[in-house]
Amino acid sequence: MPTTRTEFESVFPQLVEDILAHSKSYGLPKNVLNWFQQSLTHNTLGGKYNRGMSVVDTSQLLLDTQTLSKDAYFRAATLGWLIELLQAFFLVSDDIMDSSKTRRGSPCWYLMPKVGMIAINDAFLLESAIYVLLKKYFRQEKCYVDLLELFHEVTFQTELGQACDLLTAPEDHVDLDNFSLEKFSFIVIFKTAFYSFYLPVALALYSCNLATEKNLRQARAILIPMGEYFQAQDDYLDNFADPHTLGKIGTDIQDNKCSWLVNQALKRVSPEQKRLLEENYGRKDGAMEGRVKRLYEELGLQKVYHEYEEQRVGEIRNMIANLDTSEGLKKEVFEEFLRKIYKRSK
Amino acid sequence: MPTTRTEFESVFPQLVEDILAHSKSYGLPKNVLNWFQQSLTHNTLGGKYNRGMSVVDTSQLLLDTQTLSKDAYFRAATLGWLIELLQAFFLVSDDIMDSSKTRRGSPCWYLMPKVGMIAINDAFLLESAIYVLLKKYFRQEKCYVDLLELFHEVTFQTELGQACDLLTAPEDHVDLDNFSLEKFSFIVIFKTAFYSFYLPVALALYSCNLATEKNLRQARAILIPMGEYFQAQDDYLDNFADPHTLGKIGTDIQDNKCSWLVNQALKRVSPEQKRLLEENYGRKDGAMEGRVKRLYEELGLQKVYHEYEEQRVGEIRNMIANLDTSEGLKKEVFEEFLRKIYKRSK
Repeated sequence: MPTTRTEFESVFPQLVEDILAHSKSYGLPKNVLNWFQQSLTHNTLGGKYNRGMSVVDTSQLLLDTQTLSKDAYFRAATLGWLIELLQAFFLVSDDIMDSSKTRRGSPCWYLMPKVGMIAINDAFLLESAIYVLLKKYFRQEKCYVDLLELFHEVTFQTELGQACDLLTAPEDHVDLDNFSLEKFSFIVIFKTAFYSFYLPVALALYSCNLATEKNLRQARAILIPMGEYFQAQDDYLDNFADPHTLGKIGTDIQDNKCSWLVNQALKRVSPEQKRLLEENYGRKDGAMEGRVKRLYEELGLQKVYHEYEEQRVGEIRNMIANLDTSEGLKKEVFEEFLRKIYKRSK
Repeated sequence: MPTTRTEFESVFPQLVEDILAHSKSYGLPKNVLNWFQQSLTHNTLGGKYNRGMSVVDTSQLLLDTQTLSKDAYFRAATLGWLIELLQAFFLVSDDIMDSSKTRRGSPCWYLMPKVGMIAINDAFLLESAIYVLLKKYFRQEKCYVDLLELFHEVTFQTELGQACDLLTAPEDHVDLDNFSLEKFSFIVIFKTAFYSFYLPVALALYSCNLATEKNLRQARAILIPMGEYFQAQDDYLDNFADPHTLGKIGTDIQDNKCSWLVNQALKRVSPEQKRLLEENYGRKDGAMEGRVKRLYEELGLQKVYHEYEEQRVGEIRNMIANLDTSEGLKKEVFEEFLRKIYKRSK
């Protein structure tokens, strides 16, 4: 059985206690301790926990068991929470960089009373908490250095992806010549795929003592394209999905996003259509957005997407079929990831 | 002979090349690579390099040699540059949090053309660069995990110190009841002493294979009080030094700093003087600042400081005299640190 939100969340209080106990051992004043606790709670809780929970679910599939022992569950869930902390570190700072207003239905942390730019240091502390917990729970393990290096590498990759995104698609300066499908791929793979797709499975492999070089390499080879496909789909849904089903109104066009759709459009536009795109993309204006939307229709991007999806999913299925399971990797792990994504409508 | 700025700086280009080569191996687009290079240069170069250079000087003292071999120099200087990168990570973000305008005579990074809040992600990348270099140059060493943990711990400590500082002394809200000598000590030890005093010597000990538990513990026991004394002195000079000699005009009173002086004043004020302090401290107003300065005179804080300095330095000299050098630690290391600080006027 896949884990539940409730079960996964039940592990978090212990981890907060560990982080705070460590801070307290330094003599951290009470008011700062309380502040840190509020930041940990506000910024780590309330999401979907897809990444964190998939460490648990993947571990269960890898161990081929109906239920994990209490210890194995705690171990996998702890690693899952480390991804959620990493994500919290990114989201708190992304929200400042993007001037976002709300996150998970609450005001962004930097907009909460008395927070402001202190949020930058709070983001750092969320990242540091990862290493406090790794040291507490994994210091004795053979894979400890590998876990440290994995978190360093994925953090660095995500930051490089974010840098590329910020420089390619600044909200206040539209220059479509900056865009390309290569940039789209780099941004997606580095900013999203490594920490959202590869990291959970890599951590589950470590948690189950199955993190051989071959298993890690195969996992990466499947999960990075899957992450790329996921983001193309996300961009497609942003424009073409029913906002009621999607649960939000897409804003990629107005936000000047280097999205899969605009890059597919740029590959197909006539000089005249290119001018239309240049004049209307990335503007905070509903009528201009409407013109871009009509251009996407004219260019048949819906059909382009469906063909892309079938081809990409075919390739991924093929890789799964050819998986070398001799070192304990399991096809079900990837089938399960794909099942959650393929033809989703929200 | 102590190292020179020129000699120390000559190591940096190689490290930048390593960081960029690693980023390039990921396929990072050219414009992002250039951006990263500019951030590395602008934010890491141009300071005094006291922390970084003291790793080299300490290593030379520990090895009791006139000159380090080329290899030993590079090794110690690389570790020194890691502190400078850590400091760059802190300063880029501190400048945003404090709304600072200039740093080392140039505009702060976030105020440079086109940078803005992208500086937050650039700060993260400066931190990540530490671990890229540690992996490249220290992965094979026995002390690799210890170095990783040392950087994690010192980073976390500095962030906790910064959190305490930001919450205790916000620039826009004066409440002297928040202040105390305990808070002062916590902020100074955590925000400054660990990475500025303990870290360079700890790294030199690792660089020279002398980082035994006893040596690290003794180094910390001397260097943390020394860092505390250094900051008390800094706060004293901010108010009492000749601005021409100091090279800047002190702003601690107007900036609502939880400084050594204001905490010493709070210990000595009458109820009436306390009211004067509450009404005039932390205001962007020269006349109000003048009233606080006169109160400091009235309370004889100059004398209080000199007595404190003599007592503190006496204690530190005592610890140095009693140093257990059986595992290769050297008194000269600490004497050299103290020599640079004691009775400085700038």
